[in-house]
Amino acid sequence: MTVKSARDARTLAPVGVFDSGVGGLTVLRALTAALPDEDFLYLGDTARLPYGTKSPESIRRYALQAAALLRERGVKCLVVACTTASAVALDDLAAELAPVPVLGVVEPGAAAACVATRSGNIAVVATESTVRGGAYQAAIRRRRPQAQVTARACPLFVALAEEGWTDGPVVEAVVHRYLDDLFAGDAPHPDTLVLGCTHFPVLSAAIRRVLGAQVAIVDSAETTAAALAVVLDQAGLRRPADQPGGRIGLLATDSAERFARVGGIFLGRPLQPADVEVVDL
Amino acid sequence: MTVKSARDARTLAPVGVFDSGVGGLTVLRALTAALPDEDFLYLGDTARLPYGTKSPESIRRYALQAAALLRERGVKCLVVACTTASAVALDDLAAELAPVPVLGVVEPGAAAACVATRSGNIAVVATESTVRGGAYQAAIRRRRPQAQVTARACPLFVALAEEGWTDGPVVEAVVHRYLDDLFAGDAPHPDTLVLGCTHFPVLSAAIRRVLGAQVAIVDSAETTAAALAVVLDQAGLRRPADQPGGRIGLLATDSAERFARVGGIFLGRPLQPADVEVVDL
Repeated sequence: MTVKSARDARTLAPVGVFDSGVGGLTVLRALTAALPDEDFLYLGDTARLPYGTKSPESIRRYALQAAALLRERGVKCLVVACTTASAVALDDLAAELAPVPVLGVVEPGAAAACVATRSGNIAVVATESTVRGGAYQAAIRRRRPQAQVTARACPLFVALAEEGWTDGPVVEAVVHRYLDDLFAGDAPHPDTLVLGCTHFPVLSAAIRRVLGAQVAIVDSAETTAAALAVVLDQAGLRRPADQPGGRIGLLATDSAERFARVGGIFLGRPLQPADVEVVDL
Repeated sequence: MTVKSARDARTLAPVGVFDSGVGGLTVLRALTAALPDEDFLYLGDTARLPYGTKSPESIRRYALQAAALLRERGVKCLVVACTTASAVALDDLAAELAPVPVLGVVEPGAAAACVATRSGNIAVVATESTVRGGAYQAAIRRRRPQAQVTARACPLFVALAEEGWTDGPVVEAVVHRYLDDLFAGDAPHPDTLVLGCTHFPVLSAAIRRVLGAQVAIVDSAETTAAALAVVLDQAGLRRPADQPGGRIGLLATDSAERFARVGGIFLGRPLQPADVEVVDL
């Protein structure tokens, strides 16, 4: 009886979602669309973003602090919506939070790319530290050892997305500059592009236009949402259908005003500063 | 005798230079060119960059920590080469470090703009928090109350500079998008543009090409170098001519490798990771 109550209480807890800033809201958006009855508690470490240009040691330390705060708030599961932190700190986070399940965005994205590719020639666009860390490359090759993986750091994609310049000539010029040598010319091109940073899905229309219809574009946000449903079911943590939630809590470590303004781009609906609780890490 | 020795020792101390990252190296470059006999100790808070999108409270706290470290290292004077920190935290830094003189980049840039303008119509490009804080606008109007000042946040300039994309079609497209409505059309245009962020001087060739020769471009780095010479002279802190220095120390709070690679763009000469000491704040 006590055991059952404890389990019931856990199922009613929110899913924690952690990102270095607002880019992970593309993941939150996909999660809420896939699991509308769950509650979510999102933490963006906006005071210390971006993680993508920082050292693995700093990223690991920041991620553990963020995870500790979400654990104190009682989350039943943690989605690491920051690609950089997923790539660098997932094992540490899983060890620290056990038995709370921890899910990153790299493995689901890599799995989806291996399904989408026909030729096995896959490109990954991501931040500098994600590319250097090699997590996508390794995750893809674990599933498909013969895959040819090219990873490219595209830091300006982050800046464009945060500025809300999600389409138009500037975005296309930047996409051309980063990707033309990979996808143009006579050499065999990748047939699949992984958007290996949570900021990038908002640029996908422009990327699609530059690359054409022949290249499959894998959006880690959607693949992670599908993976979360599986994780919750396996752990018996799915919220009971007769007690629907649907609440979203938003935490940030810096300015609620900026979080709301820029975050709206990624979440896909307007946010107000009053929707955001500022916390200290 | 003791007093004189103490003063001599102080003149031999390095000039501290603080920035949120590597952009302030444009200032260091101008300082060393103007004062080649001085020693300089530069601290880039790369673990927490960029400051430009953070709240005033966070910026103030970070700047005070950085200044404390440079004071421990015995600097005789502090140049706040970060425009954001100059705009937000200069008074706090001056109070904390007194009697060590503290010099920002905003006042020298504002003064130079008031000299350069004929019409009194001045544009300032800077980071988001510098624009919001209004420090340039206020500093210009203190000198020239009738001035018409338009300040515009150009965060993508920072990303372009850090990527090393300092010229070419992408840079020009971004400059057009940010500045066309200010400088094109029939309305009276600004005749002076202040580069109100230390990253921006590396983009000045592209900005010049877009704006044409009629607009004066004020580079805060060079005006700050001129101001530093005055400050050192007034405080009796100029290094004696018979004991020339010329040494440059570089400190960073994150990856020496990235500091060296990106910093070379701003300092205008190649840097090696071994040139950079990583410190904790």
